[in-house]
Formats: sequence, structure tokens, C-alpha cells
Amino acid sequence: MTDADILLIERLADAAGAAIRPFFRARFTVETKPDDSPVTQADRAAEAAIRAILEIERPDDGIIGEEYGTVREDAARQWVIDPIDGTRAFLAGRPLFGTLIALLEEDRPILGLIDQPIARERWLGAAGRPTLFNGAPAATRTCTTLARAHLGTTAPNLFPAADQPGFDSLRGQVRDTIWGGDCYNYGLVASGHLDLVVEAGLKLYDFAALVPVVEGAGGRMTDWAGEPLGRASDGRVIAAGDAALIEAAIAALTI
Amino acid sequence: MTDADILLIERLADAAGAAIRPFFRARFTVETKPDDSPVTQADRAAEAAIRAILEIERPDDGIIGEEYGTVREDAARQWVIDPIDGTRAFLAGRPLFGTLIALLEEDRPILGLIDQPIARERWLGAAGRPTLFNGAPAATRTCTTLARAHLGTTAPNLFPAADQPGFDSLRGQVRDTIWGGDCYNYGLVASGHLDLVVEAGLKLYDFAALVPVVEGAGGRMTDWAGEPLGRASDGRVIAAGDAALIEAAIAALTI
Repeated sequence: MTDADILLIERLADAAGAAIRPFFRARFTVETKPDDSPVTQADRAAEAAIRAILEIERPDDGIIGEEYGTVREDAARQWVIDPIDGTRAFLAGRPLFGTLIALLEEDRPILGLIDQPIARERWLGAAGRPTLFNGAPAATRTCTTLARAHLGTTAPNLFPAADQPGFDSLRGQVRDTIWGGDCYNYGLVASGHLDLVVEAGLKLYDFAALVPVVEGAGGRMTDWAGEPLGRASDGRVIAAGDAALIEAAIAALTI
Repeated sequence: MTDADILLIERLADAAGAAIRPFFRARFTVETKPDDSPVTQADRAAEAAIRAILEIERPDDGIIGEEYGTVREDAARQWVIDPIDGTRAFLAGRPLFGTLIALLEEDRPILGLIDQPIARERWLGAAGRPTLFNGAPAATRTCTTLARAHLGTTAPNLFPAADQPGFDSLRGQVRDTIWGGDCYNYGLVASGHLDLVVEAGLKLYDFAALVPVVEGAGGRMTDWAGEPLGRASDGRVIAAGDAALIEAAIAALTI
């Protein structure tokens, strides 16, 4: 990863935001087919905008995208794109969805960005550097026990059945749980406003960008077994603002 | 209700927003006592600012507030205040909480306002007039069947135990459910981005302001028995962008 990669990922997010904004809160009817919905149109326009730039600027790198699939899957470097994480939030008119872009090297995320193009909020994480929120350093907060932890998670029904009891066990041990939020919750961990996010059933493009953001702010992200996240992960993720919470969260999840 | 009341309610919201903004995303530790938390400080500062204006401008009207209680409870007109609806969202740094202010006449809400002071978004509803979102008319959307409806609700654990089966039944019949959001969800119904919000366990100050906002945009709000909402309501509410959904929602809730 070079400084040029950091400049590029910001340019990719700028292009995605410009593609997305015209579709936010566009009127549609409940009879609209999913393929014609504003979020589907915005999703495609944003990913196409990102890919067009990548094909010119980084023609040898691979691309893994939610909408348009994978190219050059054996390349050493992979750009991973979720143009709109939080499609339900987007459709409901909530400015809490995000564009996620990550760069993997050797299958590990080393550069990641969460962009909220309506509120114009952006978290940028790069391995070995402090995470930036709108250009200023972001830092997680101290929280060493589950009993004091504020947990965020998107929805009670997004957990695969096998993971539900573990999550319910964790939820019973934290101080408080806030619902909804998608990728935005991980930004709030990076900025020290939430202590923990736990989710399951995520795809690579849902979590890759989050890892450098959270870790560059002083937090830690792992899977539910405490292993680092990467291309081979199973979609079960823990993000903790304080690394001391990881072990306690895993113990609670493993019932 | 007069034009002067409408000017006044906007002035109240301006004062509350100015009181709240300095506390949003203020750093605090997880050891901070609830009484010293930023949301508690913001809650009190905002309600005090509203009450100070009301005592000067409407000394004969009653006031029912979340933080500082009730005065002149037998007055014909009552101002109802929830300075921060969505305290968990506020604490987590999400710009989706809201200041709620309502005016009741004969125990019915006839003027209501939802203000989001960070995003600077405001819904204003007055009986007999079109609801305004940031000064422009807002309108709900058509949706006549639960199977097509997008439902919003704040959290799965906010329902009293007796109401949980009814809500689960409803949730099983709608197209999709989005979580979190507090009062903001009702604004999204008024603006035609959500079809239905169903909650229970609410206090008068949680729902009074929402009624003129949703109804002035073309929607309808009732309790779970289909009755109009007012000072004597039991805290179980339905907000529908399309009045045709009310009957179906009640049928689903009544299992």
C-alpha cells in the first residue's frame, strides 16, 4: 500500500457518493420491482463508477464487488467494494448507510474506508496509520468489561440460526444494545461512541473495509474464534473499541 | 391554535437544538454516572431552554415534560416536551434522535414537531394544514397491504411482554422491518419512505408530537384498538402512511 492508494480510495468514494446522492429519498411506490428500486440503481451506479476508475488506475489489481462480481481473482492485491451497505436504511431514507471500499494484500485488508455520502462523513483506515474521521484522528474508548459495554447490531433476525443463542447470550451480558446502523456502527466504534459490534452472516465486502478503520483507531476486529479477518473468514465478526473486550465477547458467544 | 403558536414551537425547537448540539459526541467514559452523561446534560439543558420560553410566552398553558414534570395540569392547553427522544442513539453518536414538542388542546395533539438538530431536519405538523419537512410539504406514500409494507420499530425488547406476540405476528406479515430510529421513523413515514411504525410502552411525550406530523402528511395514527391518540392513551401506537394499513395492522396485532 502506498500514499497513492490512499489518495485513490478517497477518489473512489467521492465518485461513489456523487453517483448515490441523486437516488437518496427518491420517491418510488411499494409496487416498484426490486431491480428498479432507487437503492438498486444507486448500488449499480456507484459500483460502476468505482470500477471505471480502478480499471484505469489499477488495471492489474483484482476487484471483488457486491453488484458486478469478481475480476482477476488471483491478483496479489484485491479491491473489495460494497457500494451501499445498509440497503434497508437507504430505502427508508436514513442517512446511516455507507459505501465500503477495502484494499486487500495477501488476502488481508490493509486499507479501508466507510463513507456516508449524505451526511458527508468518512472514516479512513490504513494499516500502520491512525484512522481519520473527516480528516481528523479517530480513537476508540476504554471499556474492559461487558457489563459496561454499549453494543450495536443491525437486526435481531440477521443471525444464522446456529449463531442466535450465542448472540442472545452476549446481549444479556452487555449494558445496552442499539439496533440498526449497518457499517455506521463500526465507524462509531472507531470514534469511541460504541464499545462493541457483533454480527454474523456477513460477506467479505461487508466487513473488509471495517477492519483497518477500527484497528487504526485503537480497536480490534476478529471472527468469533478470535482469528484475524480476511478473505477466508466465515462472516462472523466482532469489533471492539477496547481489545480487552474481545476475549469476554468470545466467551459469551460460545455457549 | 394560532399562527403565533406555530412560530413559537419553531422557536422552542431552535432553542432546544442550540442547547443540545454542544453535547453530541462529547467524549465520556463508560464509568460516567448516568446523571453526568452527555445525554442527561443535553436533555436537561434542552427542556430548561424550552420551559424558560414557555413560561414567558404562554404563562397560562400547562407543561408536561420528560425531565422536569408537569405544571398547571388542568390548563386547557398543554405543551408536551421530550427534549431528546432516542437517548441511546444520542449516546452512540447517531444523528437520528429528535426533540419532540407538541401542543394539546382538550387533551388531543393539534400541533407537533420532530426536530433533528445535528442533521438540521425538522418535521412540523399542525391540524388542518399540510405537514412541512424543512419548510416544504411532506406526503406519505400509498401502501394498502401489509405484504408490501416497510415497517420500522426501535428495538425488539421495548415491547411489554403482553404485546410481544402481537408485534411478532405483525412483523411476520410485513415485507421488511428496519430497526432503530426512534421518532425519526415517524418523520420517514410522513415523508413517504416508510409505510408503518408500530410501538408500545410509549409515554405521552414520546408520541404526542408525532400525530399532527404523520396525519398532516396524509397518514393516520391510532392506538392498537384503532382509537385516536391523546392524553389518556395507553402508549401502544400505530403510524401508517396509508390509512388503509391501520385495519390490517390491528388485525395482525390482535392474535
